[in-house]
Amino acid sequence: MLQLYHHGSSVCAAKVRLTLAEKGLEWQGHYIDILKGEQFDTAYLKLNPKAVVPTLVHEDVVLQESTVICEYLDEVFPSPPLKPSDAAGRARMRLWTKAIDEALHPACGEITFACSHRHTVARLGPEGLAQFLASTPPMSVTAAWHERKKEIVRDGLKAEGIAKSIGLYDSYLEKMEGALSDHAWVAGDTLSLADIGLVPYVNRLAMMNMSAMWTRTRPHVTRWFERIKQRDTFKPQLLDWVPADLTNDLGTFGAQSWPEVERLLQAS
Amino acid sequence: MLQLYHHGSSVCAAKVRLTLAEKGLEWQGHYIDILKGEQFDTAYLKLNPKAVVPTLVHEDVVLQESTVICEYLDEVFPSPPLKPSDAAGRARMRLWTKAIDEALHPACGEITFACSHRHTVARLGPEGLAQFLASTPPMSVTAAWHERKKEIVRDGLKAEGIAKSIGLYDSYLEKMEGALSDHAWVAGDTLSLADIGLVPYVNRLAMMNMSAMWTRTRPHVTRWFERIKQRDTFKPQLLDWVPADLTNDLGTFGAQSWPEVERLLQAS
Repeated sequence: MLQLYHHGSSVCAAKVRLTLAEKGLEWQGHYIDILKGEQFDTAYLKLNPKAVVPTLVHEDVVLQESTVICEYLDEVFPSPPLKPSDAAGRARMRLWTKAIDEALHPACGEITFACSHRHTVARLGPEGLAQFLASTPPMSVTAAWHERKKEIVRDGLKAEGIAKSIGLYDSYLEKMEGALSDHAWVAGDTLSLADIGLVPYVNRLAMMNMSAMWTRTRPHVTRWFERIKQRDTFKPQLLDWVPADLTNDLGTFGAQSWPEVERLLQAS
Repeated sequence: MLQLYHHGSSVCAAKVRLTLAEKGLEWQGHYIDILKGEQFDTAYLKLNPKAVVPTLVHEDVVLQESTVICEYLDEVFPSPPLKPSDAAGRARMRLWTKAIDEALHPACGEITFACSHRHTVARLGPEGLAQFLASTPPMSVTAAWHERKKEIVRDGLKAEGIAKSIGLYDSYLEKMEGALSDHAWVAGDTLSLADIGLVPYVNRLAMMNMSAMWTRTRPHVTRWFERIKQRDTFKPQLLDWVPADLTNDLGTFGAQSWPEVERLLQAS
């Protein structure tokens, strides 16, 4: 059976769970609590040297990187297909999944930490917080983000460059609006890995009570997300896996942060 | 006919030229001189809003991003195939092409500027150099790199974090050595887009006279690059398009920089 190493707060893990569910595949889960640092355990590092979730194990194939995992799942379990049927559509899909990984994902980490996670980790107290921030083993591949995280935990929405990350997020919602005015789904006429890749990032804003970023001015994105939420796969894979206290924190701290996020959006 | 917007000094454009050549495809070129800022021309920005090369136009399909373009070319022109025949191999290939884009590409920009391009642009004189550094229109997606470029043009190999980029490059050569000890090509038994994606980055070091990064200690990479260089496609697509003065600069300044690069490698 497929083995998935995942966690409830990871956008990338949610992407893979949603793909598995849309294909009706059964899988066995291994919950790696990334908020407790379990991703740094020696056994897990052998499967995932970057110390991130998810990791998929299928027979003797061990795969990291959610975007690569989802393309693999679509190739090995082709029904229902989650790629457009034409090459141009598949290229559009890959432009999206690439942009999600390279632009939207880092912006999401920044915004989530600035608006919510920083308040969650503040509960650890000064000593616990210092330990949390120091707990990351030195790994060149993630070093820059861990430095940035410290800055954002300290300065929140006042951290340098946060407005740019929020503006970038907003620009992708605008690109989605454009794409969805051309076709029913982001990359074409059928649900594809581009939609699935975007769901966890749009849902993150929704969980932080920031849906106004699309509901007020982006009717196509609004209808797209309504359709997504109505699917049987959404709630079990996107909401139910998130720990209840984290769901509460995202909602509460997100709502508290919204006025300042809105101000930064208008100023940008 | 396929239309390719490209430039001789771009690693990403070289990747697409090599893919086209391996498939024996004819194409019409549009040379965008990125060293003169032609990528910021309004007409080109319509094709490529990020103001980078390459862009491929195939009938009514306009595509950016070399990795997406190469997958598209392999789907539309499947012979000879440039993807492994099994799903696990294709996933390995995509782990490589993703790492190239996200890790190796930025490191390559840093190292090339620190070792060579900074000396090339210094010839512009103080005023011309200031103009060169200020010539980039404000675009959020590339803003961080343009800031970093200024730092590297000023400080060269003394710029903060350069040692880390060199170490990262070295770590990918080490990963190549591991992969090539498992199979004949990087992602499997046949040449794939993973090999093609790596060629411009290994070749960049070779053009800067830094082949010692593999020839001394990495026999599999050494033999791989020899095989690559012997292919009919290598010289026309990887060497002949590079402007002669740039080829000279890369060779001369690269050789001058090598002792310091070697020192940084040994210290890392």
